[in-house]
Amino acid sequence: METQSFVLAKRPVGLPDESAFKLKRSSLKDELKDKELNLHGLFYSVDPYMRGRMNDAKSYVEPFILDQPINGGVVARVSESKDPDFKKGDLVLGQLPWATEMIVSSSQVHKINTTEKLASEYLGVLGMTGLTAYFGLLKIGQPKAGETVIISGAAGAVGCVVGQIAKIKGCKVVGIVGTNEKAKLLKNDFHFDETINYNDATDLASLVKQACPDGIDIFYDNVGGVISDAIIPNINFHGRIVLCGQIALYNAKEIPMGPRIQPYLLTRSILMQGFTIGNFSEHFAEGTAALDGWLKEGKLKSSQTIVEGFAELPKALLGLFSGKNIGKMIVKAEN
Amino acid sequence: METQSFVLAKRPVGLPDESAFKLKRSSLKDELKDKELNLHGLFYSVDPYMRGRMNDAKSYVEPFILDQPINGGVVARVSESKDPDFKKGDLVLGQLPWATEMIVSSSQVHKINTTEKLASEYLGVLGMTGLTAYFGLLKIGQPKAGETVIISGAAGAVGCVVGQIAKIKGCKVVGIVGTNEKAKLLKNDFHFDETINYNDATDLASLVKQACPDGIDIFYDNVGGVISDAIIPNINFHGRIVLCGQIALYNAKEIPMGPRIQPYLLTRSILMQGFTIGNFSEHFAEGTAALDGWLKEGKLKSSQTIVEGFAELPKALLGLFSGKNIGKMIVKAEN
Repeated sequence: METQSFVLAKRPVGLPDESAFKLKRSSLKDELKDKELNLHGLFYSVDPYMRGRMNDAKSYVEPFILDQPINGGVVARVSESKDPDFKKGDLVLGQLPWATEMIVSSSQVHKINTTEKLASEYLGVLGMTGLTAYFGLLKIGQPKAGETVIISGAAGAVGCVVGQIAKIKGCKVVGIVGTNEKAKLLKNDFHFDETINYNDATDLASLVKQACPDGIDIFYDNVGGVISDAIIPNINFHGRIVLCGQIALYNAKEIPMGPRIQPYLLTRSILMQGFTIGNFSEHFAEGTAALDGWLKEGKLKSSQTIVEGFAELPKALLGLFSGKNIGKMIVKAEN
Repeated sequence: METQSFVLAKRPVGLPDESAFKLKRSSLKDELKDKELNLHGLFYSVDPYMRGRMNDAKSYVEPFILDQPINGGVVARVSESKDPDFKKGDLVLGQLPWATEMIVSSSQVHKINTTEKLASEYLGVLGMTGLTAYFGLLKIGQPKAGETVIISGAAGAVGCVVGQIAKIKGCKVVGIVGTNEKAKLLKNDFHFDETINYNDATDLASLVKQACPDGIDIFYDNVGGVISDAIIPNINFHGRIVLCGQIALYNAKEIPMGPRIQPYLLTRSILMQGFTIGNFSEHFAEGTAALDGWLKEGKLKSSQTIVEGFAELPKALLGLFSGKNIGKMIVKAEN
């Protein structure tokens, strides 16, 4: 059987372009071994953390391998199974290659009990995205009702969910975004209290101060860089900085310079904590159940940007770095 | 009765000199009111945090007031008492003015049960200094036996105690200092495993890496600036940065720039926490008892630099910023 896959063609320096990826055509073997599945990819997750994996650097996930397929969160449909626990047509989720068709061991995936229409939620609000929002905000941020939560990258996949959970917990929620369209969406559809378009701001720090008259108790940071520079001086005593992403810095060629933040953290007893959801693996069931419950009650809305066509994967990933997405960015393959 | 005091003459910009202080002579009233004490100062604590109080800026302690006496930790002897709970000759500890003689309300001090010879420990290892080391290392750093702890300002008042507690807890302890004399003292008298003299280093980061072959689990930071730049890239996954001081930055005239640290914290799930001992006030009794116990068992040694003469207070404080002290810097008044 024919398959197409995207491999890492080179390790980019700075902002990557499509030349970092190469489309490869190959054939899959005809006979499955015991416990193997033949899968057809349906939905592919593209995430900012993937930029880090394009480098050959120590981090919380392994780097991609040169000339090997990129991999990430994928929802797929079983087209053939040699495992009695899976049958043709089952939907599965796993950390899988960017390939149209693939043969994998059944231990690499788990079944998801949903329809094809709703399956992409397992890459978003019911998957890594939702859990990242949940654990970062609740376990590190420890929000209390009445506190002020500010979110950078607020219209991104994680940011959207963080803001909604913070509202569920009774906080005042301020979102930093890059377009007026995103600002409007967060206020109207996701009930954020305030939004700031940093691309419109000549003095971002003043706008932050104005939007947070009681100061900031929790800063959920997806972006870093100059946006965090405008926020950190406004954080209250005993504030918490949840370090979830630093998308502004991922394409930096050298270690970027900025104002030293230790004096703020020191004199105000502020906590800053980097994390990955793996740190909370014993709480996955709790997190998924809570997110699923809020989704069903209508307290949590999903937000997705769906890009059609397997061939669009590289462009979709690169689009994250120019803020092309609202909510979770997902590529939907041809059927 | 005649008294002398040091008042804040001006708010310095950058590194202060003695012109920031002015010696004032005045007379104390003759009659004490009920619950008042007349005190003669014996030992005066000088601490790096006092530099921050010379500015007019929001922090965890109030700024000093212009033309009013500097205040800090002082051990004094009661020379006259109108409170039945205190008698002439009692030793007391309090947050008191830099004055040779003073009249205060008895509620401002508490009695310490010790000899005049040992009373200065209540400004050091049995006082704020010891508690700062204790809470920062144990409550934030959470050391486990076998972990590597690195301390900047290791020969300073707090650093000396942190290293000794880390050894008590079974950690490998590395101290960063500014002179070979301090390095030798930490190894010989305080049983540090490794020391690094940053003034001797052309490539501090390499020396840190060499001294910590298993990486760093806890960074107890008293100094900040370029020293922290050499340490943070060597911190392990799940490492903890205890932000206790940033003496390298206290005299900065503008917000100093440095490499952005968020990418390290993010990708390695590192915690950074600023603190002041006030955050742990409900544990003061536990901390003091533990420190006192270790001191009596000989597991913890006191280290002090005693400067003789009330008139030397400004010079002693300023000396902290050029590393003139080993251990706790204290000024001893004339009897």
